Parts: sequence; C-alpha cells; structure tokens
Amino acid sequence: MEGDPRFDVALRLEVEDLYARYIACLDQRRYDEWPEFFTEECVYKLQPRENFERDLPLCTLSFESRGMLKDRVYGITQTLFHQPYYQRHLVSGLAIGAVRQGAIAAEANYLVIRTRKNEPSEVFNCGRYFDQIVREGGALLFREKLAVFDSELIPNSIIYPI
Amino acid sequence: MEGDPRFDVALRLEVEDLYARYIACLDQRRYDEWPEFFTEECVYKLQPRENFERDLPLCTLSFESRGMLKDRVYGITQTLFHQPYYQRHLVSGLAIGAVRQGAIAAEANYLVIRTRKNEPSEVFNCGRYFDQIVREGGALLFREKLAVFDSELIPNSIIYPI
Amino acid sequence: MEGDPRFDVALRLEVEDLYARYIACLDQRRYDEWPEFFTEECVYKLQPRENFERDLPLCTLSFESRGMLKDRVYGITQTLFHQPYYQRHLVSGLAIGAVRQGAIAAEANYLVIRTRKNEPSEVFNCGRYFDQIVREGGALLFREKLAVFDSELIPNSIIYPI
Repeated sequence: MEGDPRFDVALRLEVEDLYARYIACLDQRRYDEWPEFFTEECVYKLQPRENFERDLPLCTLSFESRGMLKDRVYGITQTLFHQPYYQRHLVSGLAIGAVRQGAIAAEANYLVIRTRKNEPSEVFNCGRYFDQIVREGGALLFREKLAVFDSELIPNSIIYPI
Repeated sequence: MEGDPRFDVALRLEVEDLYARYIACLDQRRYDEWPEFFTEECVYKLQPRENFERDLPLCTLSFESRGMLKDRVYGITQTLFHQPYYQRHLVSGLAIGAVRQGAIAAEANYLVIRTRKNEPSEVFNCGRYFDQIVREGGALLFREKLAVFDSELIPNSIIYPI
Repeated sequence: MEGDPRFDVALRLEVEDLYARYIACLDQRRYDEWPEFFTEECVYKLQPRENFERDLPLCTLSFESRGMLKDRVYGITQTLFHQPYYQRHLVSGLAIGAVRQGAIAAEANYLVIRTRKNEPSEVFNCGRYFDQIVREGGALLFREKLAVFDSELIPNSIIYPI
C-alpha cells in the first residue's frame, strides 16, 4: 500500500484533524476564523445535488476567494437579518483520493443538525463534501470546498457556512 | 497492544476505508457495485432490533449469496415500483473485534438520512452493523453484514440497501 | 509533529476505541457497565449550551463520583418511572488536545437518535463532549465528561446517560 494516500496514516490523521477543526469552528460560531481554513485563492460552493449531478452550474452559495469568504462573514455577523440558530456538524466516511499537483482530493458525508431558540434540534442539511486540500506553510488548507446537499428544496435559510 | 486488532493501524484504516467506500457506493446510487462488496457466498440481513435481541429470525431483508444481492439490485433498478429517494449514511464508533478463522468481526453504529423529491431531509433508519469481513485477493469483503435497526415499526419503504 | 497528541497514532486509536466502547455500552443498554468508564472520583455533567457559554452553573444532570453514577443506574433500571426508548449515538470530529498532568483533553460532536416503541426514530439530543481522560491500570477512563447540548429546551425526558 506504499504511496496509496488512503493508507498514509500521518496524512489521514492530518486530514481528519482538518475536518474536526473546521466543524468545531463553525459549530462554535467562530466565523471570523472560517476564511482561514482556505487558501487566498479558493472556491467555496454550496450546491443542490440535483444541479451537481446534472452538471448545472446554479449554486446556493458560490465564493471564489478568501476575501469573498470574509465578506460573507461580515454579512452573517453584521448585516444579514436572520433568526440565529446553532449548527452541529457530523462528518463520516472520509475518503482520501489521489494527490495531484500537490492537492489532495478528499470526500466525506456530512450532516448538520440545526437548533433554533426554544425549538428542538432537527435535521437541517446533509450531503457530501468534495474538497481539494493543499499544504501551505506546513498547514493543510482547502483550495476548494464543494458541499453538495441532498434536499432538492433550496432552503432560503442557510445563513451560516456548511 | 501487539496483535490486538483494535490497535492495528493498517487494518483499522483498511476497514474504515471499506465502510467509507460502501456508504459512498450506496449514497451515490451505484447499486450495480453493491454486490461487489460481498464474497460470493455471503449473508446480508436487515433486521429490527427487537427481533435481533430476542433471537427471533424474522428479517426485513435476508439474502444469502452475491447472486441474490444482484437480483435485489435488478429489482430496485428495474422492476420495483417506488418513489425514489436519496440516502445519506453516517457511520460512527467502529469497533474491530477478534480475528477468527480469517474473518474480522466489526461493528459500528449507522444513521441513514432520507431525502425525497421536494421534501426536507429526515431521519430514516438507524442502528448497528454487525459484520464479518474477510480478505480475498488483497481486498476486504463482507462475508456477512447484519444491519439491526432501532425502530420497531417495520418500514415498508426500505427499498435500497442500508 | 513529534509529541503533538493530535498526531499520536496509538493514542488517537485508543481514544477512538474508548468512545466507540462508551457509545456501544449506552446504546446496547448495558448501563451497569457505564460507571466503569469513569475514575472513582469523576465529574459527569449534562448541560444546556446556553448555560455553558454564559458560565452559568445549572446542569440537567451533575454527578461527582462513580458511586453517584451507580446510583443513577439504579434509578434508571429500578425506580424511575419512564417510557423506555432506544438511544443511538454518533460521534464525529474527535479533537485531542494537550496532555496536562496526565490527563488528555478530548472533544467531539455527538448526536443521539431516539426510538420509542412503535414510533419512528428521531433526533433526540446533540452537542459536544468536553472530556478529561486519564490512564489507570493500562486503560483509559473519563475523569471528567461534560456533554453540552444545543437545544435550549431542557428536555424533561433525558433518562439515560448521553
């Protein structure tokens, strides 16, 4: 299994750690730190599965630089009028694929549970991450993060990053 | 911890990879590939927890060869009349047990979220896998997969494999 | 990464195994074994996130020794009048932090799905574990386990440990 990134223990633990820190950042609402998980030039997309599987370009969210992510954080925390809610992410089934041109392809299923004030926790969004991860200055960063979600209803209430 | 399969890093990563590929196959609806996760002679059962814990034999699904799994796939994709839905699996708490006669005993909790067209995602089925895994031609395969689900309601709508 | 507990493979597998056995114990209703996951002097708390984040002390459950955990088990299994239900835990995003004075700080997201007799499975409780783990006699035990749950509704029906 020499050289197979699926079985590179050190790499796998680092990628698992990246996901663990990413979801902890979001769930603990440290949104200012969210753009720091990405490279300066990056892609972040949140897309319904139906569009993804039909190669249709429409996304619910689509950002193309760390600066745009920062703008989004500003919107979330300063300007968007919305009812706050807690998120709780679960990630499972991490699959690490080929390393090409320095980027690691990684995929994983995710589930987000939402809790609104004075309401019970409920299934909010689930799908699969399709990510490109690179190493910069020793740390792993997302160069591309695509979250493809299953529900064909486009929720108008996805405020926070997934 | 020498020889304890719980702490055999390479084995653990391989088993985690097996589960990751298994749930990706199902969730991406590559059902034709599903039987290939099993040995030629195999057991696949989907059973309510109440029956399992009382040692009652009744199962919701019960197949005893790769051929029967292929028949099921044919049914799902060609003949069964049903409303399609997306599945999204999460697996957690993998426990690798004793290796006996070349088979690895593995257990894990699972949760399946279902998304029907134009409906929100919802909890569909959860329970525990009780599996026997063997190595054939270098790859890990399920010789036995038992999915014991918690809800005592027998859902008449479990179409796709869990 | 020498000495960084996040990337200590053997330690990580042991901690993952601890969580896997912990949730299997609870979900399989082997409650008598639950106190054995803790040191003799220990802390177990179940607390709403709102109180936790505001440093308010009120907890839904709070125990301070293995003896109190055993009392709770006695209550659950012998004296509390309640409608039984199945629990199914999923744990994700394990983060292992600093080792201080022999204790490993560990955090992870959790989700509990509840299934009541003749009802479908449903989201019951989710949140994050904040744990202190120590080694005693070769095994890892919880010296402190804090389960902080997201729903600000205090459920009056949390009977079993989380």
